[in-house]
Formats: sequence, C-alpha cells, structure tokens
Amino acid sequence: MCPAMRVVDHLREACQVYLLTMITRMSQLFLRTLRDDPADAEVASHKLLVRAGYIRRTAPGIYSWLPLGLQVLRRIEQIVREEMNAIGGQEISLPALLPKEPYEHTGRWDEYGDLLFRLKDRKGVDCLLGPTHEEMFTLLVKDMFNSYKDLPTILYQIQTKYRDEERPRAGILRGREFVMKDSYSFDMADEGLAEAYAKHRRAYINVFDRLGIDYAICTAISGAMGGSRSEEFLAVSPAGEDTFVMSSDGNYAANAEAVTTTPGQTYPLDGQPAAAPVTTPDCATIDQLVAFAAAQGFTGQSGEPVTAADTLKCVLVAVTDTDEEKTRNLVGILVPGDREIDFKRLEAAFDPRPVEMASEADFAAHPFLVKGYVGPRALVDHDIPVYVDPRVAAGTRWITGGDAPETHLVDMVAGRDFPIADTIEAAEIREGDPAPDGHGTLTLQRGIEIGHIFQLGRKYSTAMDLKILDESGKLAIPTMGSYGIGVSRLVGVIAEQTHDDKGLCWPVSVAPYQVHVVIANKDADAAAAAEQLAIDLSNAGLDVLFDDRPKLSPGVKFKDSELLGMPFVVVVGRSFADGQVELRPRGDEPTMLDVATAPQSIIELVRKGATSSR
Amino acid sequence: MCPAMRVVDHLREACQVYLLTMITRMSQLFLRTLRDDPADAEVASHKLLVRAGYIRRTAPGIYSWLPLGLQVLRRIEQIVREEMNAIGGQEISLPALLPKEPYEHTGRWDEYGDLLFRLKDRKGVDCLLGPTHEEMFTLLVKDMFNSYKDLPTILYQIQTKYRDEERPRAGILRGREFVMKDSYSFDMADEGLAEAYAKHRRAYINVFDRLGIDYAICTAISGAMGGSRSEEFLAVSPAGEDTFVMSSDGNYAANAEAVTTTPGQTYPLDGQPAAAPVTTPDCATIDQLVAFAAAQGFTGQSGEPVTAADTLKCVLVAVTDTDEEKTRNLVGILVPGDREIDFKRLEAAFDPRPVEMASEADFAAHPFLVKGYVGPRALVDHDIPVYVDPRVAAGTRWITGGDAPETHLVDMVAGRDFPIADTIEAAEIREGDPAPDGHGTLTLQRGIEIGHIFQLGRKYSTAMDLKILDESGKLAIPTMGSYGIGVSRLVGVIAEQTHDDKGLCWPVSVAPYQVHVVIANKDADAAAAAEQLAIDLSNAGLDVLFDDRPKLSPGVKFKDSELLGMPFVVVVGRSFADGQVELRPRGDEPTMLDVATAPQSIIELVRKGATSSR
Repeated sequence: MCPAMRVVDHLREACQVYLLTMITRMSQLFLRTLRDDPADAEVASHKLLVRAGYIRRTAPGIYSWLPLGLQVLRRIEQIVREEMNAIGGQEISLPALLPKEPYEHTGRWDEYGDLLFRLKDRKGVDCLLGPTHEEMFTLLVKDMFNSYKDLPTILYQIQTKYRDEERPRAGILRGREFVMKDSYSFDMADEGLAEAYAKHRRAYINVFDRLGIDYAICTAISGAMGGSRSEEFLAVSPAGEDTFVMSSDGNYAANAEAVTTTPGQTYPLDGQPAAAPVTTPDCATIDQLVAFAAAQGFTGQSGEPVTAADTLKCVLVAVTDTDEEKTRNLVGILVPGDREIDFKRLEAAFDPRPVEMASEADFAAHPFLVKGYVGPRALVDHDIPVYVDPRVAAGTRWITGGDAPETHLVDMVAGRDFPIADTIEAAEIREGDPAPDGHGTLTLQRGIEIGHIFQLGRKYSTAMDLKILDESGKLAIPTMGSYGIGVSRLVGVIAEQTHDDKGLCWPVSVAPYQVHVVIANKDADAAAAAEQLAIDLSNAGLDVLFDDRPKLSPGVKFKDSELLGMPFVVVVGRSFADGQVELRPRGDEPTMLDVATAPQSIIELVRKGATSSR
Repeated sequence: MCPAMRVVDHLREACQVYLLTMITRMSQLFLRTLRDDPADAEVASHKLLVRAGYIRRTAPGIYSWLPLGLQVLRRIEQIVREEMNAIGGQEISLPALLPKEPYEHTGRWDEYGDLLFRLKDRKGVDCLLGPTHEEMFTLLVKDMFNSYKDLPTILYQIQTKYRDEERPRAGILRGREFVMKDSYSFDMADEGLAEAYAKHRRAYINVFDRLGIDYAICTAISGAMGGSRSEEFLAVSPAGEDTFVMSSDGNYAANAEAVTTTPGQTYPLDGQPAAAPVTTPDCATIDQLVAFAAAQGFTGQSGEPVTAADTLKCVLVAVTDTDEEKTRNLVGILVPGDREIDFKRLEAAFDPRPVEMASEADFAAHPFLVKGYVGPRALVDHDIPVYVDPRVAAGTRWITGGDAPETHLVDMVAGRDFPIADTIEAAEIREGDPAPDGHGTLTLQRGIEIGHIFQLGRKYSTAMDLKILDESGKLAIPTMGSYGIGVSRLVGVIAEQTHDDKGLCWPVSVAPYQVHVVIANKDADAAAAAEQLAIDLSNAGLDVLFDDRPKLSPGVKFKDSELLGMPFVVVVGRSFADGQVELRPRGDEPTMLDVATAPQSIIELVRKGATSSR
C-alpha cells in the first residue's frame, strides 16, 4: 500500500462521523428563505443575509447565526486563526464577563460611558461585558511572566465582544454582540514592538487577501503631536460609516485625521507691504469680508482679487492639560478662510489633551479678544500660543482680524507679523487636495473598518504595573501592541462587496458549501444521479449542499440557489436525459458537463477557485 | 501519481500554514507551571489545571483558558459536534445577551432568582445573560417554520452560558461563565420526541465513551406523579456534588429523587387484632415510643420486639395548587418511623405543585391535629388525603399516633384502618436498600453532572405560542426535548478522573498534544535529533509538544512533562549516544526505541491509543 494511501485511510477513519453528514440536504436544513427584505434593513448585505436565512435578528444589534451563516463565520475564523498561528500567535480565551477593577485602573470603566454593558452580580459586585481586553491580557502576562526571556509574545483570542452601540446598524456590520479576533504583543524594546506590528500587518494582509476583500490600509493617527503608530484596514464600501482619503494613484490612504497637508509656497519676507488696519463695516463673516475686500480692490497672493483663501481665520480653542492641575489653555488656530476646522482632526492633533471651542466665558475673561475680529496680533501680544495650518507658509500675505470691532488687518505677512513655528493639522480635507506623498490628488471614500493595528506603547503596562526583569536584572515596563479584526463583521463585509442583484455570491474560501447540487427533473433516475454526484463530490472532500426538496419547481429552486450564493451550482435537469448536467459558476456562463466526468471537472474548478481567492 | 498521493498533496497545501506551526516549542509557549496549589483549590482537577497552566482564575467562578486548556476544550467540543451532527443535529449559534420578554413569558425571569445575570442597556431595556435557551430556540422555530413538513428538527449550539452560582466551586467544575452544548428537538407527535430523546441518549453515550469517562446514566425524575422522562449522565467522582444510587450489579442507577421503593410484603386483613389506643406518657419521639412499646412487650410484624420500623410516622405537609386560586391543601404522608422524609424526593413527588411542611398556623386551624400524636385516623375522619410509603403494604401492622396527647394506637392495619390507595416516594434512600430492578442492593455514590436529557413536552411551545400546521391542516403545538452537555466542565471531569499523584494524564482523544518530545541531553546532535523526531511525528499528523528549553535540567523537564500529562513522552537523553530514545507512555512502563524506527513505533502507539479511548 502506498504510504499516502495509508494517510488517506487514516484521515477517512478519523473523519468518519463527519463524512457521513457532509452532504447537507435542503429537505432537512434549518432554513427558510424570504421573498421580502426585512423592514429594518437598509444595506444589501443585511437584507440578503436575513432573506437567505444566514442570520436572524434576536434583539437590536444582536443576531442569531443560522446553519449557513455559522459556516461562513467559522471559515473566516479559521483563516484568521491560521494566519495568527503563522506569525507565532498563541490562541487563548478570556472570559467575556469581567471584573471592574482592571478597567478602573486604566480609567476605561468611566471613559467608555454608555458603550459599556455594566452589571452587578448577586453579591452586588460590579462587572462588565468586555468590549476589548487590553487590561486583562496585561494582567495575565503579569501573572505568568517575569523575565525578558519570556518575551516577546503574541497572544490572541477569537471571542464574543460586547459594546452597547448607540445606533447599531446594518445587521452584523455594527452589532452590540459580535465576534472579534483581538491580539496583544508584549516586547521589552521598541524594535520588538515594531516587529510584532509588522508581523500583524502582514498577517492581516494575508487574511483579507484570502477572503478576497477590496480594502485600503489607512494611516490612522498623525504622529505630529504624539500618539503611536496605527493603521486601519478599511473595506471599500458605500455602506461604510468611515470616511478615508486615497490618492489618485492608490498608493496613499489615510483616515482624515491622519492626512498631512502639503505646505504652502513660501515668499521672501522682504519687500512686502506693511500690515495695515482697514475699517470693515458689516464684515463679521468671511463671505462678507471677501465681498468687501474685492470691492475695495484688494488683491490676494496671486495678484487676483481677494478670495476666501486669502483671508486668515483665527479660531480660539481651549486645551486642557492632563496632569493633576488640569490647566485650561487658550490657543489660537490659524487656517485659510476657505476651510473649516475638522474637529476630529483638531482632537487628534491635541490628543491626549482634550480640546474644545473657546467659550463665552473665555472671551469674557480676555477682553482683548474681540469676537468676530480676533487676529494673531492680539494673541501674540498676550502670549497666547498660535498654531498655523501648513498652508500659512513664510511670506504669505493675509487679511485677518484686527482685534477691534469692524476692523481687519491687510498685508499681514506670515513669519513677519505673526509666528509660524508651530503648525497644526486641523483644517478639513477636501476632494482634490494634493496627496501628501506628492503624487496626484486625494479622493474621499467610504469604508468599513475590518482591522486595526495599534502600537500602544507602555500605556497599559504602566497602568497595570506590569514589570519584567530585563537583561541587566532591572525591572522594566514592556511595550505593547493591540490588534483587532472584526470577524463577524467580515461576514457582512464580504456579502456587501460580492453580492449581485440576485443574491449572495460567496468566494470559495468562505462559502458555506462550495457546490450546490440541484435536482430539477422529476425523473427518479435523475434524482438518484444527482444524489450520487453529491456523494462523489463530498467524498472528494468538497462541502456539498444538495437541493433534494421533492415538491418545489425548478424555478423556485434556482431562485433559492441564487439567493444562497454558493460559488458553483450544478443542475441535474432536463438535459440529464442526454447524459448531461449543467454547471453554473456564479457570475459566469453556464456550461454543460457529461454526467460521467462531471465530478472531476467540478473538483478541479473548485480547487482553482480556492487558489485564486487566496 | 497515485490518486491518494494527490489528495495528500492537496491537503498538505490546504494545511500549509497550520503544518508550519504544528510543533509547539515550550521555549515559546505561553506557559508557566506552578509548584504550589492555588490557595482556593480543593479538588485535584482544579489544583492541577491551574498548576499545569491550563486555566487561570479571572474572577470567582470565571476562568481564562490558556493555550493547553483551550486545546483540550476544543477537542471536546469537536467530539460533541461530530456526535451531534451524526444524529442530524444542526449547529447554530444564538446570542448570550438576551431580551427579557421571552423569559417573562415562561416565568423564568423571576423563577431563576439570583442565578440569573440581569442588566439594563443604555436605553434602560432589561436584558439577561442566557443560562439556557429553551425560550429562544422555541421563538426561532416559530419564526422559521410553520408546517409539519419542516419537522422533526434537532438544533444545537456550543456556546458560552452564564449562571450566577451562589457557590462557584472546584474551578471549572462549577463556574459562572462556562461552555455548554445545548440542543432542542421539535416534533409534532410524542413518538417523535421519544425518538429524538433516544438519539441524544445514544450520542451522549458515544461522546462520553470517546472521552473515556466513567459515568452512570441516572433516571432523573420519577414518573409517579407526572413529570416527563429525564436522565442525567453523572461522572462518578468523590468530588461530585450530586448523590445518586447504583445497584450492586451496576445495572440500575438513578438520582435519589427517581428511585422507586420496593413495596413491602402484604398480609391478609382477616384475623388481625383490632386497633387499640394505648396511653404513652413521654413518647413524643420515635425512640421514646419504641423504648416504651418494647418495655410493654408489644411485638412488631415479625413477632420480635417493636423497632422503629414498626412505628408509622405521620408527616403533615401543605401542597399548593398551581392554578389561579393557589389553594393550599394539607396532606398526610405516612412513612415507617425508621426513615426520614427526603425533602427533595417529596418535592419531586408533588412537582410541579410546591410543597412545604405544615406550619403552626395549619395546626392551629385544625385543632383535631395533635402535634406529636397525629395519626391517620384523624386525617381520614376529616377528609385530609393520605399518601403512604410503598413499604406500608396491605395488612401490615403499625403503632402510630392516636390523635390525643400521650396516646398512640397499636395494631393499626394498613388497608383496614387507613387507606393505602395512594403511595408516594418521599422516604429517604439508604445504602443497602433493595434495588428497584430486583437485583441486589443500592449503594450511594457521588457524581458530577455532565449531561442531561429531558423530554420537555409542550411546556415551552405552549408558553411561547409555537403552533405548526399538522397533516390535517390544523394548528398544533409541537412537543420538545432539551439536552445539555457541560462542555467546559468535561475538561475538569476528565482531569479529575484520570490524574495521578504526579499530574494530569490525558487520554489520547483530548490531550492537547499526543506526544511530548523532551530534550534531556546537552549534546547538539541529540537536540537536532529530537527536533527531527518532533518534525517527523508532526508531519505524520500527530500534534507534538517539544520541550526545547535550553537551560533547564532534565529533572525539571520530566516533572513538567508529568504535570502537563501528555499520553506519550519521548525523552532524547543519555541513551541517545547508543542510538536510542526512551518512550514513556503515561501510566505504563518506559521502553527504549531505536532512533531510526522511533517515529513509526510512536505513530502506531498513538493510533492504538486513539482507537482504544473511543
């Protein structure tokens, strides 16, 4: 006996019970397809997954996984597991019901606000349902390890998470109970963290490529003012909630918060006209100011009549220190008048210090700030820090507030009349802005977050007091990374990206069944041949769905097969009399196969499909 | 190329990533073994699973699964899954976070009391963490199915459950968050339910046999006074919380509640002496009465002096009707004076009607009841129902209460002086009692509940208003079964039943790794040979743990290998110089193997082990 045959026999034996049940008969399947979209569904994946009987709503944002949906979920889990194991990740499983203390240590018990499901046990002890597990993994490593020799380590789990979303939406795209792969890396040195991060990045690319997803890797946090390295994997989809930018050549992608602005052109400071005040009645808005200035014959940098881009908006914000004293600092942000402040970008720029717009009280406390006419001069005179948009380059000329009612200053030159040492990324990004990498322009796109990799640094290890003996025998605080994949969300994402107008269209890598054999002929011989075909394919290791429902018309069965979305449908129909069956590869032209050679042809096609989707 | 070789190649390709990581190196494993038992651990499995780094306590009754523990858990899950699929079970997955309403419908929201984890979401909506899912599965079938043609169906899930146990104990033997396989059967007719029940019984036997567990199948609820068929699978263990009885020949096992009493011998009513009152001063207790009666020369049924078994205790209880009126009914229970009432058996006998001991108020309301001297005569005279222990057979003679202070009746004959039509199983079971099946006597044993199968009938389908069109086109209420296996608990049970004084001893079917290769030789060639051996075994499809830790002594490694408990340990040690390695099958004598043929010998042994444990 050839040794391989022995292995196959052994495998067959090991899988015996499984093989016996590998053909799933639709006559017995726990399935009901629906003709109508569920009332609460807006996006295609949600509608189709419910109509095709993959998932069922149990409560707002909480879903049950029916047989077909669970198969897809498990296949995705397995792909994630394989790629995590390939980078040396070790799978463990932490509870979902967690004690409060660790989350109090890091402040997240409060920070999470309403997003956290909180409860008390019978003894009145506070508990929570884990939204993510940084605290718990840190504690676990603290409990298990004490020497640098134990590190580096990458730990992960594929586990049910809970977040009490304010607006759960789009079925499993944003649920309140969902499956996530979360992993955590622990390293003594920053280089180790960088390596763990790079490994995860590669593993995530493998996962999403194997799933056939169209996605972008977006730089997620600007390094401008602190914050560690972080990237988001966003599946491109109009159903997405996140906006991201991509350069026209596709080589650059980032979250709006992370986009860096191309600095404006500089001009010599010498030879520019001196700044001068101008009385500007009824010019409290930029539009009014531009109209007035143009009427006065003022020109902008280009020599053309003044536009909003030649005016300089001075936005006052208050930034609060995070130390014990929590000092509230007024700061001026200078941006060209044709751009709004993007508050999310502003927040990211000052992170972790919270920022808010200056209040009436702030203005009242500083009478030199004249609302509607604030300019950089008063700020500089009163030692209020000024941050400028990178477009406000040295030597550029601006019309800006004159710090007195109905007064502006013209010919205010950047770097001469106000400082430009500190720049800030706070202005909105617009479609057509130059790409930060210097190639082409930016487009705005919508995406669904499917993965996030994050260099945490020592925030959690410090908070949880995780200390490890380093090579010199001193206690040191390890550096951490945290990495997530929205596993159950991916089921929705793949459905969203691959469906057509008839139904779901699963890639071979995650389809619940690779082949769907349909009896569409009342002849008993045809039914027997279809069953034999299903058995042959199953024995060859394929997962087969078999539509053996006796009383349904071929039309109903075909509609169901389109809705359910297996990659290969084989119809044993009218042409069976001529010794043929029809192969319908989803999204491709049907072909006729001889009954005798059909199994071999189908097996080869499925294998090709499995390879191409990786 | 032989066709089997093609399949193997295909499998290899499909498993490539997995194969790469199949050898687990202890130098990198997330593991720390402990020398000391955890302070809170009492039972062996708890101590060993923590010491060997399989699990870690996160909160009271809540555990984290570390790499080795998770492997065991997954293997058990897979065996359960295979056997459930083999009986046609369809796997789905319901949420753990559930809405309140369905559990209000069945009354369990209240009935569960403190055992239920309850919480409110951000909108103040009441939720719970599912302790079991009868309500949800019933609703799901209601949502999906409407015709008898859709039935029968068996649905199951392997899922995390939550119960806020008052006294979580013994590690994962009784936790507050745990993994359970729960399944539910739906049938139109009672015969269908019986069949689904039989299928589950068979599947459970297969599961527990494959896991190598020593268990008893215990009849769980007496059919005497209503209640559906139910059996518990109890793993025999002194660490168990449940008491059950087993007959001396092992053919009968039951929960104490379900044991039926062998009826006493009957005697002719004719020719017996007439009942007569006797003044019995200071005889309020059975002991006092027996001493007094013996001193008076009274004899029992056997003609010997009176013993406690010749006296008849008349216990008054109050049973409350479950209908709207909730009438409270006084009932007399007559048991031989040498036996106590077993309250759990009493409860089971009246289930679902709640029962409690008669109160002072009951006595006060019925002045004919003389405390300490209550006998059947007053009960019969005042139409209070009387239930008798089966030992109180027709024609037996008793000394019992005379319904007046310091008075008893002697020669009270069952079936003549009081009715015996209604019997009840309420007396305690004692070691040595005759087995109900007529063979041998009963022993009392302790066990851990690992499975429970239950014919629910129409309780939940009625409560949730599940109606299905039957063959005649009428709406009918399906009958249900519910079936559970404590999956995570099984990890503890197997550890408990198989460990020895050195550590865990896993059967091949669930061991995290089948083979543990240990380098115990500082020679570089030995280390290389050990690695090659590990790779060869892994390539042959075995799961291999490889102790490659460079700086530890052989003694430490051997101790760890005993604690961790893989079924086969292979030591590449001193004898490697002679071309030999040592095979240590756990619990068996070590043998020496030639390096060259070692892989083949080990593979065969593992396969044999895998077969024998099934």
